[in-house]
Amino acid sequence: MDATEFRRRGKEMIDYVADYLENIQERRVFPTVEPGYLHQLIPDHAPEEGEKWEDLFKDIERVIMPGVTHWHHPQFHAYFPTANSYPSICADILSDAIGCIGFTWASSPACTELEVVMMDWLAKLLNLPEQFLSGDKGGGIIQGTASEATLVALLAARHKAVHDYRKIHPDVKNDEEVAAKLVAYCSDNAHSSVERAGLLGHVKIVQLPADEKHSLRGDTLQEAINKDRSQGLIPCFVCATLGTTNSCAFDNTKELGPICEKEGIWMHIDAAYAGSAFICPEYRYLLDGVEHAMSFNFNPHKWLLVNFDCSAMWFKDTSHVVETFNVDPLYLKHDAQGGSVPDFRHWQIPLGRRFRSLKLWFVLRLFGVKALQEYIRKHIALAHEFEALVVKDDRFEITAEVIMGLVCFRIKGPNEPNEKLLKLINEDGRIHLVPSKINDTYFIRFAVCAKSTESKDITYAWSVITELATGIIENKQ
Amino acid sequence: MDATEFRRRGKEMIDYVADYLENIQERRVFPTVEPGYLHQLIPDHAPEEGEKWEDLFKDIERVIMPGVTHWHHPQFHAYFPTANSYPSICADILSDAIGCIGFTWASSPACTELEVVMMDWLAKLLNLPEQFLSGDKGGGIIQGTASEATLVALLAARHKAVHDYRKIHPDVKNDEEVAAKLVAYCSDNAHSSVERAGLLGHVKIVQLPADEKHSLRGDTLQEAINKDRSQGLIPCFVCATLGTTNSCAFDNTKELGPICEKEGIWMHIDAAYAGSAFICPEYRYLLDGVEHAMSFNFNPHKWLLVNFDCSAMWFKDTSHVVETFNVDPLYLKHDAQGGSVPDFRHWQIPLGRRFRSLKLWFVLRLFGVKALQEYIRKHIALAHEFEALVVKDDRFEITAEVIMGLVCFRIKGPNEPNEKLLKLINEDGRIHLVPSKINDTYFIRFAVCAKSTESKDITYAWSVITELATGIIENKQ
Repeated sequence: MDATEFRRRGKEMIDYVADYLENIQERRVFPTVEPGYLHQLIPDHAPEEGEKWEDLFKDIERVIMPGVTHWHHPQFHAYFPTANSYPSICADILSDAIGCIGFTWASSPACTELEVVMMDWLAKLLNLPEQFLSGDKGGGIIQGTASEATLVALLAARHKAVHDYRKIHPDVKNDEEVAAKLVAYCSDNAHSSVERAGLLGHVKIVQLPADEKHSLRGDTLQEAINKDRSQGLIPCFVCATLGTTNSCAFDNTKELGPICEKEGIWMHIDAAYAGSAFICPEYRYLLDGVEHAMSFNFNPHKWLLVNFDCSAMWFKDTSHVVETFNVDPLYLKHDAQGGSVPDFRHWQIPLGRRFRSLKLWFVLRLFGVKALQEYIRKHIALAHEFEALVVKDDRFEITAEVIMGLVCFRIKGPNEPNEKLLKLINEDGRIHLVPSKINDTYFIRFAVCAKSTESKDITYAWSVITELATGIIENKQ
Repeated sequence: MDATEFRRRGKEMIDYVADYLENIQERRVFPTVEPGYLHQLIPDHAPEEGEKWEDLFKDIERVIMPGVTHWHHPQFHAYFPTANSYPSICADILSDAIGCIGFTWASSPACTELEVVMMDWLAKLLNLPEQFLSGDKGGGIIQGTASEATLVALLAARHKAVHDYRKIHPDVKNDEEVAAKLVAYCSDNAHSSVERAGLLGHVKIVQLPADEKHSLRGDTLQEAINKDRSQGLIPCFVCATLGTTNSCAFDNTKELGPICEKEGIWMHIDAAYAGSAFICPEYRYLLDGVEHAMSFNFNPHKWLLVNFDCSAMWFKDTSHVVETFNVDPLYLKHDAQGGSVPDFRHWQIPLGRRFRSLKLWFVLRLFGVKALQEYIRKHIALAHEFEALVVKDDRFEITAEVIMGLVCFRIKGPNEPNEKLLKLINEDGRIHLVPSKINDTYFIRFAVCAKSTESKDITYAWSVITELATGIIENKQ
């Protein structure tokens, strides 16, 4: 494909994409294919000679689309949203074309510098404490996912804890001796990625019981710390969640934070989903307590119209993460090193990195702050519309306070009818939902996801749910 | 930006990209900006109201381009290539629009299934042993970077080693006791990411001396294993490199492999750059020994025309990595779980993942195998052209055998004139190179990188180098 053909085919793809996204509601939100469907539709080896664009292009509908779960379908209410917007797609085209690998400042100064400024723009939008901004010790970086951000924070905390401990106990022979005693905490409602970070980073993770609102409280943490210290363990890390995946609950960072500071423990805040809402002044109170955190993360690629991946992470003191990750071969050295501009490779798991800040730049400039705030508000309002429908029907109950764009609900009574209902909903295929469970109570999660979801889609979803539930409830009676 | 505007702006971006890539040689390959240049060119906060496309669009040339290191410039010879092709850009547009997060099969079956088939296509192209293909225990996955692949392999090896050891020694009380004794090996020419994987995964990495061809040999490994075992350590992992970053040297996997098998050690092969060349039958011998590896990785995003990121990794037995990474919350469970199709989230560090196999599908189909082979051959031939120019000039020497597209050279004698030469080259800005160092010998790396690099660019580069070197060499005499 030469430039002339690319001008033609690239534009055909732009039209295909616009057609796909504008008419997505005509497709079934969840596919009907069986596992293994795809390999039957294509050859089992790559072609020797290049094929024609037309043949590939028509295979998008024949091979790919039958197996796509349409995350941007207005009736997609599973998981949490993943962002998608036209400005972001345009930015990614540019990022691909520049195709630089921004591991150091010198490997493409614009890639690093736009990221520094965009992370400051975002920090200001969220009204993050000054310490998280670039300039002094703080700063922000785009990670791939919240899982990586949690792991990076845990590894930096581990490094700091070992270092701090050995400074006070010079008799200790090696790092391993300290590392084996480290312990970290999260709520029993925290995302599975926290448990996973512990597995990968070899730090014991203790899941502490959340309160009746699914929030981790200060007393619970203090008690666990006291118990672990009395047994010779070294508490080093707390991962607090603002907006859990289960039920969008908020850990009490205003209580947890001062305890972490007093105890010399690294508090990381994971606000992967809910964080985008903090750009609205009326939801900013949910972030109070962040001033006590050592690191903070949220995903613009979930709810701020920036396509995956763009997970925004800030540190109060970047020296901890640089010390954790720093290895310095000559082929990556450059003259501007150690100056005012960071080498982001020291702040992340991979070495290579794309020019992802272009997406933030395009989205923030072309939408503007007001439109992004309106978008968040609309999604939350739609969630409350759905909540009101559930509340009006006394066969159902709401299982967690609706604060953001997620509604957790269930048929009153035992789990089994709810499991049946969820299964029916997804087999039916008009809408798509996933379940969760807290303390053995099974419930269904209804997330407002697509940019195009409107009020009529909420009432439609509720009509599908009640239609399918009625049979189950009647059978039960 | 609505769909109508996207149709217009997306197409403008396609034209911009084609213009940029077709005329890239008119730009300076390495920018002249000083650190901190960018924040002076744009506001320090996001706009309240959305801006016009035109204003953003013209800022690409005003703000971004002056700070870009042009990796696809025909005179870019630094680091290693990063891939860029029109078919790959088209695939990424589609991937962005579908915008699914493929962490499980159910979250978008096509995303998982196309990846399974594409990894089989690639495995067959490389003539990987049958065991690495999907179907039985083996299988491939697209990781983000080779650094992540190395870390994933190390973590799986660590998990397996602890498990194996405790099976034989049931008296051991906990995993930490075993983990503290683990040791892993690589060549002292291995990439910095191996050392980093050890730091992150808390496994001691021993860098073993390579031979005079910069290759890690079996005897050296065996000796290290014997010594470490005699001191009560547990060797668990070897990272062998095919095509080192320093000098594109090849570890002797035919010697290392049988030792690893005999000793019960996980051998991972990192062929990040060189791996793409193994699609040519005449270079496939360089991969011999892979039959002894537990995992293998190379980066189609380096040298196979698939845009970053696309790092291809295979396992002989995926159960090890699944056991290492598996955490299973209800909101990610689905009916097809545990069947014939993998949930890739258990094989990688992040949870989320993009639909990256589309890039492989577009590239392999639109180029075809023959054209990709020709592309590799052309780059290697250009490297030999450059080598011949160096060899003809007796002021210079080649410091490593030229096997792929990298030529390592220097002015004969001490390091200092070479350091001066590299500095002059990059200040001059007509071409861009980076240095390296092996055993205190400083040398300059000349990598054939851009898709558009031609014979005339090689002679041009050599004329620039000799022009700048002449002053240095004359001053010296």
